[in-house]
Amino acid sequence: MSDADLKDTSEELEPVRGAYAGAPGDPDDPETDGAETASEPESESLDEDNRLKAEYVRAVKDALDEEDFDRVYELVEPLHPADIADLFELVDSDERPRLANAIRDLMGVEVIAELNDWVREALVEALPADVVASIAGELDTDDAVAMLEDLDEEDQRAVLAEMEPEDRAAIVSALSYPEESAGRMMSRELVAVPETMTVGDLIDYLREHRELPTEFWEVFIVDPMHRPIGTCALSWILRCPRNIPLYDVMAREQTLIPADMDQEEVALRFQKYALISAAVVDDSGRLIGQVTVDDVVHIISEEAGEDTLLLSGAGDGDINEPIRDAWSSRVRWLIANLLTASLASGVIAMFEDTIARMVALATLMPIVAGLGGNAGTQTLAVTVRALAMNQLTASNAWRAVRREMSIALLNGGTVALVIGLAVTLIFGNPMLGGVIAAAMMTNIVIAGMAGVLIPLTLERLNADPAISSSVFVTMTTDSMGFLVFLGLATASGLVG
Amino acid sequence: MSDADLKDTSEELEPVRGAYAGAPGDPDDPETDGAETASEPESESLDEDNRLKAEYVRAVKDALDEEDFDRVYELVEPLHPADIADLFELVDSDERPRLANAIRDLMGVEVIAELNDWVREALVEALPADVVASIAGELDTDDAVAMLEDLDEEDQRAVLAEMEPEDRAAIVSALSYPEESAGRMMSRELVAVPETMTVGDLIDYLREHRELPTEFWEVFIVDPMHRPIGTCALSWILRCPRNIPLYDVMAREQTLIPADMDQEEVALRFQKYALISAAVVDDSGRLIGQVTVDDVVHIISEEAGEDTLLLSGAGDGDINEPIRDAWSSRVRWLIANLLTASLASGVIAMFEDTIARMVALATLMPIVAGLGGNAGTQTLAVTVRALAMNQLTASNAWRAVRREMSIALLNGGTVALVIGLAVTLIFGNPMLGGVIAAAMMTNIVIAGMAGVLIPLTLERLNADPAISSSVFVTMTTDSMGFLVFLGLATASGLVG
Repeated sequence: MSDADLKDTSEELEPVRGAYAGAPGDPDDPETDGAETASEPESESLDEDNRLKAEYVRAVKDALDEEDFDRVYELVEPLHPADIADLFELVDSDERPRLANAIRDLMGVEVIAELNDWVREALVEALPADVVASIAGELDTDDAVAMLEDLDEEDQRAVLAEMEPEDRAAIVSALSYPEESAGRMMSRELVAVPETMTVGDLIDYLREHRELPTEFWEVFIVDPMHRPIGTCALSWILRCPRNIPLYDVMAREQTLIPADMDQEEVALRFQKYALISAAVVDDSGRLIGQVTVDDVVHIISEEAGEDTLLLSGAGDGDINEPIRDAWSSRVRWLIANLLTASLASGVIAMFEDTIARMVALATLMPIVAGLGGNAGTQTLAVTVRALAMNQLTASNAWRAVRREMSIALLNGGTVALVIGLAVTLIFGNPMLGGVIAAAMMTNIVIAGMAGVLIPLTLERLNADPAISSSVFVTMTTDSMGFLVFLGLATASGLVG
Repeated sequence: MSDADLKDTSEELEPVRGAYAGAPGDPDDPETDGAETASEPESESLDEDNRLKAEYVRAVKDALDEEDFDRVYELVEPLHPADIADLFELVDSDERPRLANAIRDLMGVEVIAELNDWVREALVEALPADVVASIAGELDTDDAVAMLEDLDEEDQRAVLAEMEPEDRAAIVSALSYPEESAGRMMSRELVAVPETMTVGDLIDYLREHRELPTEFWEVFIVDPMHRPIGTCALSWILRCPRNIPLYDVMAREQTLIPADMDQEEVALRFQKYALISAAVVDDSGRLIGQVTVDDVVHIISEEAGEDTLLLSGAGDGDINEPIRDAWSSRVRWLIANLLTASLASGVIAMFEDTIARMVALATLMPIVAGLGGNAGTQTLAVTVRALAMNQLTASNAWRAVRREMSIALLNGGTVALVIGLAVTLIFGNPMLGGVIAAAMMTNIVIAGMAGVLIPLTLERLNADPAISSSVFVTMTTDSMGFLVFLGLATASGLVG
C-alpha cells in the first residue's frame, strides 16, 4: 500500500521522474531510517518485536502535553508511516487530533491508509471536509473508500462535493457495491493492454505513459470489449525478448473476481491460488479494477482472527471500538447466555430433593457440566476453523463427525476414569464415583456431538457457525451435564 | 507458489521458452479450465463457494473403489493443482495413495506444495525415497523443506541421499534453521544485482540468464559483500528508460528479515509494511534468500486462526491431524480444567450447610459462575487478539484495562439487574434477588479484570497468552462466582 501511494504522490509532484524519484528509499526521504528499523532492533523508537517502545510513546505524549509541537515533529519524523499509524493508536484518543496537527505534513496518505478503522473514523470526523477531500484524492480508490464509507451520509456528501469529479465518480461507484465486497476493496489503478502488443510495445507504452500507476505486479490483457483474457507477471515480461507477442507470454488461466464477491471469498481465492493481484470484473465481464494481495493480507488476518471473537461473543472486538458499542454487542450475548443458563438451573431444580438428601452432588455437578463445556468448545473451535477454511465440506462432513466421536470417546474415557477414581477415594463412595464417571463419559460424548453437529447445521442453513454455535453448545453441555449426573444419581438409588 | 513452481519446471523442460511456454494459461495446459472455474461457479466440479462438489468427490471415490483409474484420471485432469490438493483432503486417507497412483503425472509440484501438512506427511511417507527426492528437487526450497521437515531422521536422510548435491545443500542448510523461522520458509531463488547496473543492463541480464527464476516481484540490489542495499519493484524497472542506473531506481528503505526470525514475526512485518517480498539475511547481513507474500498469507491465516484453537485447548486443531495426536493434546487440557473445576467444587463444599438449608442456591449458583465465565472469555478473546496484532503494548495496556473495567461495569450492571429482578419475582424472595444481583455484578467485574490482566501478565512473562489464559480465567470466574454468591448468601443471613 504505502509504497504505491507514495509513488502516486511523488508522481504528481514530478511526473517526469515518477517511478524512481521519491522512491521510499530516497536519501532525502524521512521514511528511510523508519522502516530500516524493521530490521534494526537497536533503533531508538522500536523494540525487538517491532513495536513502538513505551519510553518513546511517553516522550511523544509528554511533548504533546507540554504543547512542544516542534519536539513532537522531531520525534515522529524518522518513523515509517505504518509506525506513525501505530503511534496514533497508542496515544489517548483526545491526544490524536493534536498529534495530527503537530505532524500535519507527515500525515501522508500511507499513514491514513494504515490507521485502524475506528481511529481513522474519529480522526476523519475531526477534520474539515476539504482536508478530508484532498487526502481522499491522493489515496488509492480502495483506501479512499475505507476512509469515507464510515462517515455519515451528510459528512460523506460534504467531502465528495469537495473532490475532483473523476475521483468522486470512482468513489461513488465503489460505494455502490455492497460493504465488504470486492468492488469496495478494488483499486482502479491498473495496466490493461491488448494481446496484440509485443513485449517491446508494452515496455515502451509503460515508459511513455506517465499517468499509469507505478506500483503493479501484473499486466492484464484485455479483448476489444475490455474483458480480461489473460495476465502477465512482470517477471515474465522482463525475461522475454522484445519481439515476443503478449499472447505468447500471458497466462490464459486466471482467477476473475466478480465485483460483488464478498471479501472473505476473495481472501480465500488469493490463498488457494497464491495470487499477487487479480482482475475484478463487472456483470458483463468487463475489467473494472484489481485487488492486490497487500490489501488481502489485512482481510485474511481479520477474517481468521474474527472467529475467536465471534465464538466468545465479543463482537467486533477491536480495542479501539468505542466502549458503548463494545458493551451493546457483548451484553446481548451475555443475556442470551443468561437464558440458556436459566435452562440449566431449571434442570437442577428438578432434582432439589435429591440434592437436599446428598449435598455432595451440588459440589460435584459443576465439574460434569464444566468439563463437558470445555470438550464441546474444543470440537467447536476445530469445526468452525475447518468450515472457515473450506476444509470441511459435504464430502467429508461425516468423516469429521466420526472423527470427533472417536476423540470424544477417548477423552471421555480418560477423564471419566480419573474423576471416577478420585471421587471414589475422596468420598469413599464407589457408587458416587461410578455415577460421576458415567455422567462425565456421557456428557463429553454429547459435547463432541454438539460441537461438530451444531456448526455443521448452522452452515447448512447459511448462518455463520462462528456467531451462534457456542451458545447452543454450552446450553447442551450444561443442561445435559446436570441432567445426566443428577438423573443417574437419583435412578441408581445412590441417594438412599 | 504454484505458478512459480510451474514456471521452474517448464523451464527445465525447455529452457529457451522458460518464461512464457507452459505458462499456466497455455492452451494445452490441463490447469486452464481448473482455475478459470474460480470465476465460473457453473463449473461441473466446483460449487459457488469454490469448493469441490460432493457429487464430484463421490464420483472420484466410486471410480477409485471400482479401480477404474482411467475414469479417475479423466475426472481429475481438468482440476487446478490447488483443487487436486483439496481433493486429497476430501477423500478418505486410505484412498489417497491409490488416488496419487491413478493421477501420477498430474501430481505436479504445485499439488504437493498446496497439500495440507498432515495429508502430505502421510502421503510422502507412503512414497519411495527416490520419488520423494525427485519431487523435492523440483520444488522451491521452502516447499521441499516443508515436505521433508516432518519426516523422521532416517527417511529424511534416505531422501536427501537421493537428491542432487546442490538441492541437498540448500535443504540441509534450511533445516539448520529453527522450525517456523524465516530460514525455513525462505526461497533461495531470487534475483540480486549490483547497483552499478542500469535498467537496460538488468533487462538484458534477465533475458540472457535462463537459470534465473521466472517468477519474482522485486530485484534485490546488493553490495560487493552481497549485502542488500536496496530493492526495485519490477514495475519501477519497466517504467524507467534503459539508461537510468539502478541506484536511482531502487528504494534504499527495505525490511530485512533475519534468517532466524519467527514466521509469526515475519507475517506481522509483511502486513505492517505491505510487503510483496523481502530479503532474508544471515548474521553477517548477507542476502541468502527471499520470503514472498504468497507463502506469508498461509502463515497469517494459520497464526490468526490458531488463537481460536489455542484458547479452547484444541491444540493443532487440524481436521486432518491423526486422532491419537488430537486426543493427547486435547485431553491434557481437559485434565487441567478438571483440576481447576475441582478447586471450584472445593469452594462449594465449604458451603454445604448453607446449601442444605436452601437448595435453591444450588440451582442458581451455576448461573453466576457461568455468566462470569462468558464475560471473562469475551475480554480474553479481545485482549489475546490485540496482543497478537501488536495493537496492545506497554504504552496502552492501562488504557485497555480501564476500558475493560468500564465495559465490565456496564455489562455487570445490566445482567445483575435482569437476574436480580427475575429471581425476586420467580422465588418471591427480594433478598435472594439482591444477593444474586450483587454476586453477578462482582463476578463479571472480576471476570473482566482476569480476562485482561492474565493474558497481559503471561505476555510480560514471554508466555503465549493464547495457550494458558483461559484455564486461569475460568478457574477465577468459577471459584469466585461460587464463593461470592454462596458467601453473600451466608453472610447476608439470607439463609435463616
